[in-house]
Amino acid sequence: MPDPTFAFQVTHIDGGARRGVLTTPHGAVETPAFMPVGTQGAVKALTHRDLEALGAEILLGNAYHLHLRPGDELIARLGGLHRFIGWSRPILTDSGGYQVLSLAASRTIDENGARFRSHLDGSPRSLTPEKAADIQANLGSDLAMVLDECVAYPCGFSEARDAMRRTLRWARRGCDRMLALKAGAVPGVTLTNPGQAQFGIVQGGVHSTLREESAVETVGIGFDAYAIGGLGVGEPPPVMYDLVSQTARLLPVDRPRYLMGAGTPEDLVEAVARGVDMFDCVLPTRNGRNGQLFTSEGRLNIKNARFAEDERPPDLGCSCYTCRTHSRAYLRHLFLAGEMNAAALNTLHNLNFYLDTMRRIREAIAFRRFESFRLALRMSLPRQASDS
Amino acid sequence: MPDPTFAFQVTHIDGGARRGVLTTPHGAVETPAFMPVGTQGAVKALTHRDLEALGAEILLGNAYHLHLRPGDELIARLGGLHRFIGWSRPILTDSGGYQVLSLAASRTIDENGARFRSHLDGSPRSLTPEKAADIQANLGSDLAMVLDECVAYPCGFSEARDAMRRTLRWARRGCDRMLALKAGAVPGVTLTNPGQAQFGIVQGGVHSTLREESAVETVGIGFDAYAIGGLGVGEPPPVMYDLVSQTARLLPVDRPRYLMGAGTPEDLVEAVARGVDMFDCVLPTRNGRNGQLFTSEGRLNIKNARFAEDERPPDLGCSCYTCRTHSRAYLRHLFLAGEMNAAALNTLHNLNFYLDTMRRIREAIAFRRFESFRLALRMSLPRQASDS
Repeated sequence: MPDPTFAFQVTHIDGGARRGVLTTPHGAVETPAFMPVGTQGAVKALTHRDLEALGAEILLGNAYHLHLRPGDELIARLGGLHRFIGWSRPILTDSGGYQVLSLAASRTIDENGARFRSHLDGSPRSLTPEKAADIQANLGSDLAMVLDECVAYPCGFSEARDAMRRTLRWARRGCDRMLALKAGAVPGVTLTNPGQAQFGIVQGGVHSTLREESAVETVGIGFDAYAIGGLGVGEPPPVMYDLVSQTARLLPVDRPRYLMGAGTPEDLVEAVARGVDMFDCVLPTRNGRNGQLFTSEGRLNIKNARFAEDERPPDLGCSCYTCRTHSRAYLRHLFLAGEMNAAALNTLHNLNFYLDTMRRIREAIAFRRFESFRLALRMSLPRQASDS
Repeated sequence: MPDPTFAFQVTHIDGGARRGVLTTPHGAVETPAFMPVGTQGAVKALTHRDLEALGAEILLGNAYHLHLRPGDELIARLGGLHRFIGWSRPILTDSGGYQVLSLAASRTIDENGARFRSHLDGSPRSLTPEKAADIQANLGSDLAMVLDECVAYPCGFSEARDAMRRTLRWARRGCDRMLALKAGAVPGVTLTNPGQAQFGIVQGGVHSTLREESAVETVGIGFDAYAIGGLGVGEPPPVMYDLVSQTARLLPVDRPRYLMGAGTPEDLVEAVARGVDMFDCVLPTRNGRNGQLFTSEGRLNIKNARFAEDERPPDLGCSCYTCRTHSRAYLRHLFLAGEMNAAALNTLHNLNFYLDTMRRIREAIAFRRFESFRLALRMSLPRQASDS
């Protein structure tokens, strides 16, 4: 039973794509939506003012990182994550399961959960489905994720099956914990955002029978919304697209669908075509810091010598602050000179490119022109970097 | 004979302090003015948009750094520094003399100029009074500095005298070169800003007879404006203040006076009281990156454990974006988490503090309340950091 402050309404359908509005205790998000990644409570290199100017409607934070530093209990004492970081719009928090796998040392996973050592100080830690819910209750994000077990790619059938079934058992425990938290039955944990909604996560590797079992069973538990996890981890894009198609069809039409961690601009459009509503990815921010710019004509590596005297903006079709103000020559100089604002200016442009792509997707859906938009984008954006 | 686009008008006098307007080819600057340091064509951690929002009217660039990377000739081909970096307001460029002393390796100085190795790639380089003028002509800054020879502190009389007299000889050569450049008599150099004005620089270490000789002789050469160099290099503040008093009195009343490289907020106010009009200093930007904030109650080191749950803004008397939006607790978290935007948010606040101090100084002078402003500031700002 979703909290009354959580709602999702599909407003337009165009083929497999849909446009809608996700309502949270901190306001509405138009979907399909891209969520900039603010792992530690900040999008790297940017200020919130930059994000607001870009039109970002929702941020992603990470429970693993914020639990370790500065601590979710400290954040709860200071009124929750929104207040702590000074961001008044919606926030989704990842449970930290993926980070335990990718960052933590001495990791062991059993039925109870994960035990590991902090990547910051080596201290012993544990993360269970209950604890993941508790941490996110303290943080008070608008959208919380259950703890799941991701598998690497490639991964054999039986290993993917075992992880998927454990994810299902953890999902039931996470759901139960959320009910207990909302009933005020968990002493020592503050529900800083009583309207917090919870996402279940579909796993199953690249095995379609496992994806089907996971989707059907996760929906059976009954969540506010559903995520597709464990994709974009190295499998070929056509495999990912097929699994997204298959999984999305098994999820309720009246609930948001979130493809976790993906991806390139092409991935976003292809997933929207298959019914996905929400995305997050580090590509625009991380690649920006490394000097790679996403443009309407492909990717551009700003440190390339051929830009040394190039007075054109990074993207001739872009109206972001970076493109309005600066040349490729200057951005190359800043990057090579090690100036910190190179990261800010590149990230600003890349996030604008992603957010603007989502705006154009939503508009195309509303006017039932999504298929031609998709084809045009596929023609203009070579998958390979244009000059890397 | 100053170019018609360069002008300086004193509009108010209050004791030894004066308020005025400096006019350049790229617009006016209200004085007393603080110039944020944008060594490589960017103020570290900030975008130009941030600087404009702070009300910065003029930036400082550095001829040494820009000559080495990306090269002043490249910048000239791209139309000059303003166009290259996308900043339409006034720019002052330092000649690079100080950087040759502080950064370059294998440095030798003789009558002709300085020979050294680039701090970037070890390549052999030279800087002469003529070359410093040429580089700045290529850059097209509004305000250019002659090449001078700084001495360290402490420095004996004869060494300081020799460097000062060499600075005088270099000043004459720099002035002659500027005339040749404006007459179009220097092939291979582009005068990208025909209205560029030139500052002479008073040297002489901490020896008042040398300062007097330097001031009288430099004024005798005849520059558009005058700088006081070689101070704030380790001498006690009272010594600096006395030398500023003495030197400023010897400079023409109708020309801007620029105290190079200083200083703390207290230094600025004390120098204004002695007739200085312009300042630059790395303190607000460098200290910001290191987590030290200038506030109306003294300095504050944001990483201090006592701020871990402090919900107050850094400076209760400040209306900058950082203070309007964020708590000490969050800024501490960002700094400890190594987030790049910590540098941006701290720098933003510190520059606002400096620029706002200058605004309040100008207002105090206009209302003939400068002496009471100076006393109030001296009471509120302990020289020592409050919690370092």
